[in-house]
Amino acid sequence: MNAYDELMKFARTTQALAQVAGRLGWDQETMMPRAAAPQRAEEMAAMEAVLHARRTDPRVGDWLEAAETSGPVQVANLRLIRRDHERARKVPARLAAEIARVTSMAQGIWAKAREEDDFATFAPTLKEVVALKREEGAALAEGADVYDAMLQDYEPGATAGQLDAMFARMRPRLVALREAVLDRPAPPALSGDFDEGAQMRFARQVAKSFGYDMAKGRVDKAVHPFSSGSGLDVRITTRTNPADPFNSLYSTIHEVGHGAYEQNIHPDHLLTPVGQGVSMGVHESQSRIYENQLGRSEALAGWLYSQMKTAFGALSVPDAQALYAAINRVQSGYIRTEADEVHYNLHILLRFDLERDLIARRLEVDDLEAAWNARFEADFGIAVDRPSNGVLQDVHWSVGLFGYFPTYTLGNVYAGCLYEALRRDVPDLEVGLAIGDLSPATDWLRDKVQVHGGLYQPRETIARACGEEPSEEPLLRYLEEKFGGLYGV
Amino acid sequence: MNAYDELMKFARTTQALAQVAGRLGWDQETMMPRAAAPQRAEEMAAMEAVLHARRTDPRVGDWLEAAETSGPVQVANLRLIRRDHERARKVPARLAAEIARVTSMAQGIWAKAREEDDFATFAPTLKEVVALKREEGAALAEGADVYDAMLQDYEPGATAGQLDAMFARMRPRLVALREAVLDRPAPPALSGDFDEGAQMRFARQVAKSFGYDMAKGRVDKAVHPFSSGSGLDVRITTRTNPADPFNSLYSTIHEVGHGAYEQNIHPDHLLTPVGQGVSMGVHESQSRIYENQLGRSEALAGWLYSQMKTAFGALSVPDAQALYAAINRVQSGYIRTEADEVHYNLHILLRFDLERDLIARRLEVDDLEAAWNARFEADFGIAVDRPSNGVLQDVHWSVGLFGYFPTYTLGNVYAGCLYEALRRDVPDLEVGLAIGDLSPATDWLRDKVQVHGGLYQPRETIARACGEEPSEEPLLRYLEEKFGGLYGV
Repeated sequence: MNAYDELMKFARTTQALAQVAGRLGWDQETMMPRAAAPQRAEEMAAMEAVLHARRTDPRVGDWLEAAETSGPVQVANLRLIRRDHERARKVPARLAAEIARVTSMAQGIWAKAREEDDFATFAPTLKEVVALKREEGAALAEGADVYDAMLQDYEPGATAGQLDAMFARMRPRLVALREAVLDRPAPPALSGDFDEGAQMRFARQVAKSFGYDMAKGRVDKAVHPFSSGSGLDVRITTRTNPADPFNSLYSTIHEVGHGAYEQNIHPDHLLTPVGQGVSMGVHESQSRIYENQLGRSEALAGWLYSQMKTAFGALSVPDAQALYAAINRVQSGYIRTEADEVHYNLHILLRFDLERDLIARRLEVDDLEAAWNARFEADFGIAVDRPSNGVLQDVHWSVGLFGYFPTYTLGNVYAGCLYEALRRDVPDLEVGLAIGDLSPATDWLRDKVQVHGGLYQPRETIARACGEEPSEEPLLRYLEEKFGGLYGV
Repeated sequence: MNAYDELMKFARTTQALAQVAGRLGWDQETMMPRAAAPQRAEEMAAMEAVLHARRTDPRVGDWLEAAETSGPVQVANLRLIRRDHERARKVPARLAAEIARVTSMAQGIWAKAREEDDFATFAPTLKEVVALKREEGAALAEGADVYDAMLQDYEPGATAGQLDAMFARMRPRLVALREAVLDRPAPPALSGDFDEGAQMRFARQVAKSFGYDMAKGRVDKAVHPFSSGSGLDVRITTRTNPADPFNSLYSTIHEVGHGAYEQNIHPDHLLTPVGQGVSMGVHESQSRIYENQLGRSEALAGWLYSQMKTAFGALSVPDAQALYAAINRVQSGYIRTEADEVHYNLHILLRFDLERDLIARRLEVDDLEAAWNARFEADFGIAVDRPSNGVLQDVHWSVGLFGYFPTYTLGNVYAGCLYEALRRDVPDLEVGLAIGDLSPATDWLRDKVQVHGGLYQPRETIARACGEEPSEEPLLRYLEEKFGGLYGV
């Protein structure tokens, strides 16, 4: 075997082990017996140790040096393996282990602090996490910008400078739209009592309509919905709330976007580095376009109305148009994951600025709660009433995910670009949506984006799909048009 | 750290990885999407490669040499690690990989041949498996008896000679009992239609009554019931047949015996070699005493009758005594897993003799079907009507499990010994059983057997629990007394 083949054989086994570790995570959130946690922590640590040893294996460096490549797939695989290898080698094993230990513990402390609505009990742990992540960031950055180095874990090629400039262009238009919409009366929400078994059956039916392949996946319940795995075994989760069927419905469609992406990567790439979604931003573009541009579209609302009547019986809203208004109801609120499309990115911009300040030591953990509350009131016009509605609401920082938040808005921006290109390429898209036929949209996304996996760089993936460089303009136009229409502004 | 501590740290990680690999097997039988099989095969192979590398790691040999121990737990851990290490090193990696490849493929070919009732399509594959296992056996035996060497994988310390002598003593009394019972009229079976959801709820309820800890486990459906995992995450499966609630009930109780054993090992041994069930025979003693001596006892039948009426409504048998007769109905039949207590061991004796002949080259695969059919007719008095009712009924040989079958009867023998000791130590056992209180029995088994895990040798484990050397006598006495009473012979 030549060096490339040897490297790929090794990488394939590593990837298979990473899939196993990922499925262990799925199991923990869906199936694990409740008293198994201490044993599971050791199992996860053992898998992580195996994976870390493989990523830093000196033979990988030798093979990378010796490998000769031909063609874009080989080039992309080498690029991705090199990135992983170099990243793993830059972080001392001692520090990697310490981050794993502290963040695993921190998650529990965060959850308890959130439950008790007390930031002070979480602050000492968060300080530890921030200190460790600053140290890791410095090791990764090798003298360059630390936050930029962190971003590469989630969005290779992105820089804080670019994101900052883009967010600055978005902010005034999002604020203006928000103010205009909030000046108008809100349409009625959907009310009623919705059987949770029926919600799960409906979730599975809608997942299939959106192209999720049940032969390569499954839908279960979890407290926080997520998607897990790639290739032939991609599982999603959702949740149910008897008072709110949209929670389950749109969690499901969102996760189907993530899951379909992983299911639709070209089968030749199975268990190779190219055989994974390319970045968090591109991943989120799929989940968001499924959820919002398609799932909350006016064209789909007619079909959705009839399906929901079949699933749940009579509805409190009289017709498809009222349903369309209800699923796009704009409301100021504390919680990011419950935010409407108008508010969502403002939540992200807040977190992006605060976490950049934290990493750059312009802000310390002791001042974080006050900084959050001041910024939130300025941006959203309401005062944070308790930490669980503010600085304690997201798990991300507790587990050391700094640099992750901006990929949510980047995903929305990419979704805006893709939706514009999709409408251009598939002019009668709405004809299909009106009868619940998502396939013209999902086939286009599959062929233009999903099938490529990690073959191209993230931004390049979107640019090739759209035929032009991505920008925030299409998203802003889409939001202004949609909510302008809905609210008559 | 001294050598023992280093070795144990390494072994603990290996054990954690083995738990992960085991759970992957559970997932495959219960949760895996149906199109995921090819990817799963690579994931399993990757885990096996990691485990094999750890078991043969030269550092393990060094630590074993350098380790100083004090106390029985350390001695037992070293003994178990040494056994694993030496076994793994005796088998060339090439042969181990080939066995893994061929048996994984053979399982599918066996399943298809069984479905199509055609031994000829399976024979070439079975020849390959037998050839590979003979080669592996020779490597393990190093000049000594090959079948004895194979037995050590399932029942350390057992020899074919001992087993053969014991089975020879059992055979005439089993045959005599069988003939006497079959001369008498059989009692009515239970008939009706039993809701499968109600069967699963009943299974979970009975599992708890038999001491299975739901906080450290779960009950799911699978085609072939099994138990998986140890320590804090021990899962069992069962199946349902709408025409036969006993299938689900006794599969569940059987697997609870296995599962409770793993759950009840002393927590100090978590993720260590001592922290696993000590052998297949001792494991089967737990599953069989739960299922038969306790689960099919006259004392429990009253409670069971009332529980089943609550779960399923009116029953076709009039009272507890009729239920007791129905759950102990003796009937000549082809299938081992459906056999009553009188016939069961005759099935095992047949397989034991045939597989010993296969391994010793006294019998070849081409003659196996004829040998099976002749022996079955001689032993059971009925001619095998098709291979799926004969030589193709069990999965074991297709996956290379030679030396496994005798542990089933050894388990029954051990269960007989334990039951006699249990009745001696807990004189009012039946008072508890009559009201569905299994705890006097399961507590005794926990404290006498289960808690020790792999601390003692298998036979020693039973001898310590019973206060005397195990023999087949108690089992035979129990069978003769029970079925003598039931059938008036």
